[in-house]
Amino acid sequence: MTSIAFFGLGNMGGPMAANLIKAGHQVCVFDLFPEAVDKLVALGATTATTPELVVKNADVVISMLPAGKHVFDLYLGDNGLVKALKPNTLVIDSSTIDSATAIKTAQGLKSHKIHFIDAPVSGGVAGASAGTLSFMVGGAESNFASAKPLLDVMGKNIFHAGEVGAGQVAKACNNMLLSILMVGTSEALQLGIDNGLDPKVLSEIMSNSSGSNWTLDVYNPCPGVSEGVPSSNNYQGGFMTDLMAKDLGLAMDTAVQSHSSTPLGGLTRSLYALHQKSGNGKKDFSSIFEQFSQKN
Amino acid sequence: MTSIAFFGLGNMGGPMAANLIKAGHQVCVFDLFPEAVDKLVALGATTATTPELVVKNADVVISMLPAGKHVFDLYLGDNGLVKALKPNTLVIDSSTIDSATAIKTAQGLKSHKIHFIDAPVSGGVAGASAGTLSFMVGGAESNFASAKPLLDVMGKNIFHAGEVGAGQVAKACNNMLLSILMVGTSEALQLGIDNGLDPKVLSEIMSNSSGSNWTLDVYNPCPGVSEGVPSSNNYQGGFMTDLMAKDLGLAMDTAVQSHSSTPLGGLTRSLYALHQKSGNGKKDFSSIFEQFSQKN
Amino acid sequence: MTSIAFFGLGNMGGPMAANLIKAGHQVCVFDLFPEAVDKLVALGATTATTPELVVKNADVVISMLPAGKHVFDLYLGDNGLVKALKPNTLVIDSSTIDSATAIKTAQGLKSHKIHFIDAPVSGGVAGASAGTLSFMVGGAESNFASAKPLLDVMGKNIFHAGEVGAGQVAKACNNMLLSILMVGTSEALQLGIDNGLDPKVLSEIMSNSSGSNWTLDVYNPCPGVSEGVPSSNNYQGGFMTDLMAKDLGLAMDTAVQSHSSTPLGGLTRSLYALHQKSGNGKKDFSSIFEQFSQKN
Amino acid sequence: MTSIAFFGLGNMGGPMAANLIKAGHQVCVFDLFPEAVDKLVALGATTATTPELVVKNADVVISMLPAGKHVFDLYLGDNGLVKALKPNTLVIDSSTIDSATAIKTAQGLKSHKIHFIDAPVSGGVAGASAGTLSFMVGGAESNFASAKPLLDVMGKNIFHAGEVGAGQVAKACNNMLLSILMVGTSEALQLGIDNGLDPKVLSEIMSNSSGSNWTLDVYNPCPGVSEGVPSSNNYQGGFMTDLMAKDLGLAMDTAVQSHSSTPLGGLTRSLYALHQKSGNGKKDFSSIFEQFSQKN
Repeated sequence: MTSIAFFGLGNMGGPMAANLIKAGHQVCVFDLFPEAVDKLVALGATTATTPELVVKNADVVISMLPAGKHVFDLYLGDNGLVKALKPNTLVIDSSTIDSATAIKTAQGLKSHKIHFIDAPVSGGVAGASAGTLSFMVGGAESNFASAKPLLDVMGKNIFHAGEVGAGQVAKACNNMLLSILMVGTSEALQLGIDNGLDPKVLSEIMSNSSGSNWTLDVYNPCPGVSEGVPSSNNYQGGFMTDLMAKDLGLAMDTAVQSHSSTPLGGLTRSLYALHQKSGNGKKDFSSIFEQFSQKN
Repeated sequence: MTSIAFFGLGNMGGPMAANLIKAGHQVCVFDLFPEAVDKLVALGATTATTPELVVKNADVVISMLPAGKHVFDLYLGDNGLVKALKPNTLVIDSSTIDSATAIKTAQGLKSHKIHFIDAPVSGGVAGASAGTLSFMVGGAESNFASAKPLLDVMGKNIFHAGEVGAGQVAKACNNMLLSILMVGTSEALQLGIDNGLDPKVLSEIMSNSSGSNWTLDVYNPCPGVSEGVPSSNNYQGGFMTDLMAKDLGLAMDTAVQSHSSTPLGGLTRSLYALHQKSGNGKKDFSSIFEQFSQKN
Repeated sequence: MTSIAFFGLGNMGGPMAANLIKAGHQVCVFDLFPEAVDKLVALGATTATTPELVVKNADVVISMLPAGKHVFDLYLGDNGLVKALKPNTLVIDSSTIDSATAIKTAQGLKSHKIHFIDAPVSGGVAGASAGTLSFMVGGAESNFASAKPLLDVMGKNIFHAGEVGAGQVAKACNNMLLSILMVGTSEALQLGIDNGLDPKVLSEIMSNSSGSNWTLDVYNPCPGVSEGVPSSNNYQGGFMTDLMAKDLGLAMDTAVQSHSSTPLGGLTRSLYALHQKSGNGKKDFSSIFEQFSQKN
Repeated sequence: MTSIAFFGLGNMGGPMAANLIKAGHQVCVFDLFPEAVDKLVALGATTATTPELVVKNADVVISMLPAGKHVFDLYLGDNGLVKALKPNTLVIDSSTIDSATAIKTAQGLKSHKIHFIDAPVSGGVAGASAGTLSFMVGGAESNFASAKPLLDVMGKNIFHAGEVGAGQVAKACNNMLLSILMVGTSEALQLGIDNGLDPKVLSEIMSNSSGSNWTLDVYNPCPGVSEGVPSSNNYQGGFMTDLMAKDLGLAMDTAVQSHSSTPLGGLTRSLYALHQKSGNGKKDFSSIFEQFSQKN
């Protein structure tokens, strides 16, 4: 049983904290929205009036925040937790942020003997609730080992990607590739449709050939081809275009910093930016298919 | 036992014809290179001095030729076979050509009561030899049914894509998507490497996440990640860059004619054209990875 | 004074023929729409009931048709004019078609001692009316010289691009580049706007710097920056998106056939195809700016 | 006559400072390389042992540094000049950096009543020496007015782009557009060459048509078309690929932050990254033409 401080109780953080409580851990929670805190307290969490008090007894701190600046400020800002945390505390940041900020945060904490891993997730709200998230972890082997039992409570696939920052890099690479699979599958399906093919038949052929990929096989973007996926539910639910656009921005930041060439990833970023501007930010990211299938 | 005339005995056509002979069919072969003919004759084929004589007793004609103009000319050119073929002959064209030419050829033959299906393949020389090719077939249901037993001899997955031309469209869609998977996977892997990740670890993570796709999972382009793939053999063998470039040209022709938008497919065509110009035409198409991994 | 047969009296062909009449030439016209013929007859043209009769006395034939197949069929189809034309007739095809068809047509006519130049135009309906078109001509030097006096009547800038087909290639190259200038200028302007810049100020800066280009300087796509351009008239008039999409298709055909790498041109083709599908085919091609400037 | 402190005496900063000296201003210089300082001292500059002493009497501070972090640190870092500068000092930062850092620096200085403008340049080493640079300035109108006489000494075209940061945005937009013009012109020219056209003739045609743009008209990337440009001097001199790649990185940072769609700009960033990796970082940026023209 571990004493855990949990910051950020949104769509993802809330159910993640709930799973830790269910597993019998002592969880003290914090969020700017009182309603979010109340929900967790009803499930057995404690809370406190200030971040410093929230971490008072914490052996582990977990954060799930919107962007890099929130993470850095929480730990190392003017009123950062760094002054309140005990030596040897383990910080698990599950926010999706740029790896540079993850590394900078880890370095700032290290000089106070506080351990840090970056552990962004995939799997969406459904995975957070079911405790089946994937975690991509960056950090020292020993810290990964310490965190593993807690990550197992919240997720199913726990990957150790490398040193601090590597979790964020792995997620950026995966989601950039995911966006490419999605756009590529969409334009290939529509090319077939435009030439008279049935998208079900074409999907079947390509899934059993070298065109096989996650978006075609289990998340088909063409309405009517598969059941139980967002494309057959007006693109509701799933992984929002806005979030994909955010992740592609992080991937581009990473690519620019490392002087990496990402022609397809750069292009999907711009196509998802156009898709957002067309008013599709809240739809599932497979709705990019509609850009190709629209009829004049 | 069927009497088959087979035109085009190259790297693909040769072993395909050989499998038909092994299965007990009477095969009369033709090719402009006598050595290619001799090989098949040694295996039990017959031959003849002119195309007209080759098809004299044929119930089925199979062609495996480099481009659309060769196919059209063979059947409908000035000395086209159309005049020599019996009514109700079944023509199976396994060449990879544009669907427009396939449709035009089918129409020309139809007025002479000759049946036509387009049946391009994937699976490479290894698949042709092993009889494990995939066939993507366009044509009437009855013609597909007639051809099926012969295709089963040469291949493993036999798909009926739709009407005449649909086989070519399906192949163009699949190979365009394949090129996108390959380039996307290559740039994602290199982005990880440039940021300190081990490509084996990153491949493992993405293959078990939403980045999963055929090129990452079973044909990894990064040397040293997988065994038994072209990337671990100096990009020898496999599917040549020149052939991928040809198929992408056909996909672009198709997209232009149907006014389809193919941003990623158009871009991979240009990237493969650059890759060819850099002297990599004879390497496996996964060698595009080297464009991203080169070090200045 | 030359005896001219003119085929194709649409938005472009009509005013071109009218200018030849005004200059004193004998012009016999043909079009499938009687109204189009009537207009020219009212200006002094003659006509005839069949294409063969139209060319009866012609020293020069000019054609302005929608696509390559129309051009080839007019001259070399089953009822092609080739049988009716006198030896040494000069054929000037001003249609915008693929260079391969231009070359094939020239070769077919050459065996009957008929001369051919391809002479596609730019300058739009306004240029056709004012006689200020640009002609990009492919053909032998002597044929270019023969055609020059007539082209001078219809246009202002007459370029000799090279052998037969070179006129079409030059136009494809120019219009592909034009589309790149337009999309690039649009995204650069919007990037500035999104970051608080005044598009007038930014246009002024870039026009006086290395970003200077035809679309920025004289055809600005951002409404309100320049007067008297389509963007300040709801994108009415000018050069339609549908026509740019057609020309980009021809450029891609050309690039595929010559194995040329055209990453930006391939991408603008797909972006204009999306723009068409969004219902903008009849708007001026500078309306692509709206894709970037739309507000969610 | 103004008392100026000048930081950063590289290829650009050195000649800029020299022009200020020639114009009669008192210039106190600083650089980490003593040789660079010595050169300016020989021309009449003074120097000092620490940055604080360099700015002791300064009414104006000019900086020309490699990246945003250098600029921020110089003024606002642990030993930042902010503590040494007099109120009402005018800071002119001519470095090319991201606009976010420019804005952050301006804000930090403002609270000490120090004025800031961002004033990145274009025109290269030649322009710096000749005093013919273009300046793109962001900042308050009054500060722009104060700086103008000094900028006039170093440059020819002085643009006021808007508020603080707008100079950097304008430069990012312009150079992104410039890269698009260069790649687009290169692929259009090579498409023509691949189809038999003479690049001189094609350049002449497009320069006089709607393909006209700065890179085609005055900086032609195809060797042998123009004289006195880098392409006719083995791509030596001019504006290095490494610098274009840096500027495209800044443009992408800007686009990501403002959620702007930049399909062509994103693609040219990746193409220039590949070009760098091929070992062309020190060549002029027009050498991207060689990627398209290479012969297998």
